[in-house]
Order: sequence, then C-alpha cells, then structure tokens
Amino acid sequence: MKDQAQTLDDIIHNDTIFRDGSLVLEAGCGVGAQTKIITRKNPHSNFISIDLSEQSLKEGEKLAETLKITNVKFQQADIFNLPFEDATFDSVLVCFVLEHLSDPMQALHELLRVLKINGTLITIEGDHGSTFFYPDSQMARRAINCQVVPQKQDGGNSNIGRELYPLLHAAGLSDIEVSPRVVYVDAGKPELVEGFIKNTFTAMIEGVGNNAVAQGLIDRADFDQGIKDLCRTTQPDGVFSYTFFKGFGTK
Amino acid sequence: MKDQAQTLDDIIHNDTIFRDGSLVLEAGCGVGAQTKIITRKNPHSNFISIDLSEQSLKEGEKLAETLKITNVKFQQADIFNLPFEDATFDSVLVCFVLEHLSDPMQALHELLRVLKINGTLITIEGDHGSTFFYPDSQMARRAINCQVVPQKQDGGNSNIGRELYPLLHAAGLSDIEVSPRVVYVDAGKPELVEGFIKNTFTAMIEGVGNNAVAQGLIDRADFDQGIKDLCRTTQPDGVFSYTFFKGFGTK
Repeated sequence: MKDQAQTLDDIIHNDTIFRDGSLVLEAGCGVGAQTKIITRKNPHSNFISIDLSEQSLKEGEKLAETLKITNVKFQQADIFNLPFEDATFDSVLVCFVLEHLSDPMQALHELLRVLKINGTLITIEGDHGSTFFYPDSQMARRAINCQVVPQKQDGGNSNIGRELYPLLHAAGLSDIEVSPRVVYVDAGKPELVEGFIKNTFTAMIEGVGNNAVAQGLIDRADFDQGIKDLCRTTQPDGVFSYTFFKGFGTK
Repeated sequence: MKDQAQTLDDIIHNDTIFRDGSLVLEAGCGVGAQTKIITRKNPHSNFISIDLSEQSLKEGEKLAETLKITNVKFQQADIFNLPFEDATFDSVLVCFVLEHLSDPMQALHELLRVLKINGTLITIEGDHGSTFFYPDSQMARRAINCQVVPQKQDGGNSNIGRELYPLLHAAGLSDIEVSPRVVYVDAGKPELVEGFIKNTFTAMIEGVGNNAVAQGLIDRADFDQGIKDLCRTTQPDGVFSYTFFKGFGTK
C-alpha cells in the first residue's frame, strides 16, 4: 500500500525517456538544471540544448563538464527562430519555458517545424494556481501572487500547466497525453519538505519579494508573513501540494 | 508513455484491498455508493456498513440486493458511539465522512477503539480548495465557495483532504501514508468529462445554489454564471482538476 519515496526529478522525469540513437532538442535549457537529468537518463541519445542566454549556456557547459556528460551540445538560439532545418529532431523537450513566453503557440509551431514527422514533443510546466497547503494562509497566497502578477504583466503565465492540453491540441499535435505531476509533501516525506517546500518553492517566492514590494504589490511586512506561513507548512503537522503538468504529443 | 484510462472509482479505490477473511467496518456508508465498489473488490472479506440514517441504510440494502452483494451487513450506528467491542475489526474504512464532522478526531478515536492492534484504517476525503480549471473563472470559484462556507458554518471542512496526514498522526496511527488522488480531466478523457465534471462535481455544486442564494451568500445571477463557467470547462479546450486524498494508517 506504500508509495515509493519520490524526488522531484522522479516525479517529472520518470518517463522522459527517448529511443536509443535519438537526436533531441532541449529548448530553453537555462543553466542545465534539466539537462543534467535527462542526458544521464538517456545515455544513448544525443542532445542539443539551446538557450537565448550565452551566460546560462556557459554555466550549463561547465556543469556538463564537471559531471562528465558527453552526449549534449549547448548552442545559443532563439526559440522563435531556430537555426535548424525542418524535421531535424526525433524529439523536442521544452521544460519550464512556455510559462515565460507571451506567445507560447508561436514557439510550439517553431519547435514542431524542426521535429520529424511522428516525432514526440514533451513539455513540462508548473501551475502556481494549483498550490495549496496546510495550515492555509491568505498571506502566503498573496506572497505567491507576487510572482504570478508580475509574470502576467511581462506576458507570461504562471498557471500555464493546466493549459498544456489545449495548447498542444491547438498546435496540431496528435496522441496528446497530459498528466498532472503532483508534488505532495507531508512529514512522511522529509526529503521533499526541505528540498521542495523550503529550497525550491519558498526560495523562489522569496526571490520576488523586493520587486513586489518596490512595485507596491504588497507591504514588506505582509510579504514576510507570507513567507513565514509558507515555511510553517514544513512543520511536522504541515502539508504542501503543487502540481506540475507534463504533456506528450506526436507530430 | 500513456496513462491507462481511469475512472473515479479506480483513482480512489484501486488499492482499497483487504486481506481475505477480513472483517471490515465501513463507517458512514450513506446509500452504499462506496459499499458497492469495495464489497465487490473484496469478495473474500466481510463488511459491516454503518450509517446514522435508517433511510440511507434502506437504500444501501436495496442496492446490495439488486447487485446480489452478500458480503455486507448494514447496521444503524453512531460513529461517535459504536455498538462494537474494542478490537473487533481487521480494518476500518471511512470515506467522505470526516469532512462533515465538527470533531473528526473524536470519530477517529472511536474508530480506532474498535480496530484490532495492527489493523489498518483507511480514510478518503476530498478537498474543494484543490479545485482548479481552465478557463479559470472567479464566478465558478465563488459558486464552489457556496458549498465550502455553509459546510464550515455547520462545523464541517470541505478542505479536509489536505489535513489527513496531520489528523492520522494526531490520532496516534503509525506507518501513515497519505497520497493525493487527482481527478485530472481534459478532452482526452471523455468519460470523466461527463462523469466527473458534469454529473459529479458541477451537479453537487448546483445542488447548494438555492440554499446559498437564500442565505445571501451570492446572487442568483452570479451563481448561475458560476455553474455555466464550470460547465464551460467540459468543452474540448477545457480542463478540470480536483484532488482527493487517501490515507492509510496502522493501529
């Protein structure tokens, strides 16, 4: 009756598996946080990991070197204007990227252009609106909104996870399968209490505080209380739940 | 890479399995909606299904008779004052009941009294605060609150799902495992679009409308718009997500 202990990587990447010999495009790799997972899970596939930021790519390259990962090439490129021929890749992976784009559909069309017929597109996105916790706290919810609102003002969408199915459908993919990947944390999962609630989610929200206060979205005292209430959910009687979504589709 | 098609029953009861020969108490069986599932999944266990309402029990008995279910006995009883000796049952199941109680801990203590040492308690509860959908709608969220608020006024808790771990822990159970059971619905799951979004969730919310309007919680027009917006999520580009929680613990 027991679940196996799961890490965040297991929850979102357990089935990020490519056929041996695949050429895979990872679009928007940043500093390689996902690259280091998927390249090692798929040692017999080759990856081209692109990002707009040269600086991020340098960090990704350094990481790959340190970890002795040899099946990836980092390359500077614009997701809206990819420097690849049509139908170059067996698979395309786009992870935590669409949420930042004002026109995710345009990016999907460009990604599909470079994907082979019958190739698979995989996309993984979070959904801040899926967050709930115990004890509940209005201030914590307001602090989370300090990331949601500015991201929306910048044309992004912190709640894009729930939209993956309609997006992939509208992009013209077939055999679409979207599934929720719930990171549910209680005291029975100590590694996620530290690793996810504290070091991942709350740290990320904490990072938007200065900007949100400067923008007048929230008072400093309220924001700090929200962060404190998020940390409160890491106590032994606390609970936290966040849902990522993962979509597969075939060109 | 594909999920198997799942019904709501699969999602919440796939692992409601008792050892052959078990005597199981189902507390708060109502009209037998869960009874008919669990008795047939466990043909070599015997069930005593209790409820406070004689009327509900009669309907449960009729249902069991129609379905030729013979391994259950229905009995009128109060969950706070059970007519059973200590340590009578191998397992106890309590499903969609704690949400209605102003003192769920008192009920858990009484259920644990009649459970044998090393016996298993299983509890399943919903969490209305886990609901999110696309397109999002403030009116739909307000309509859902028309069930949450009166239930709270009555001493219940529509968001109790997230509290199962701390509740089972405080009740003194060991080997506690709580897991989210997400009912995620998109157009790729047509049976859940009709069966869950429309006939289960929205129908349930629709049922509280008259009372909520009479109480002044919401205008009729706003409530109706909320219901319309919930129904809107059943369109081909709509998405709906609701999370039940299931907890196992050992006495």
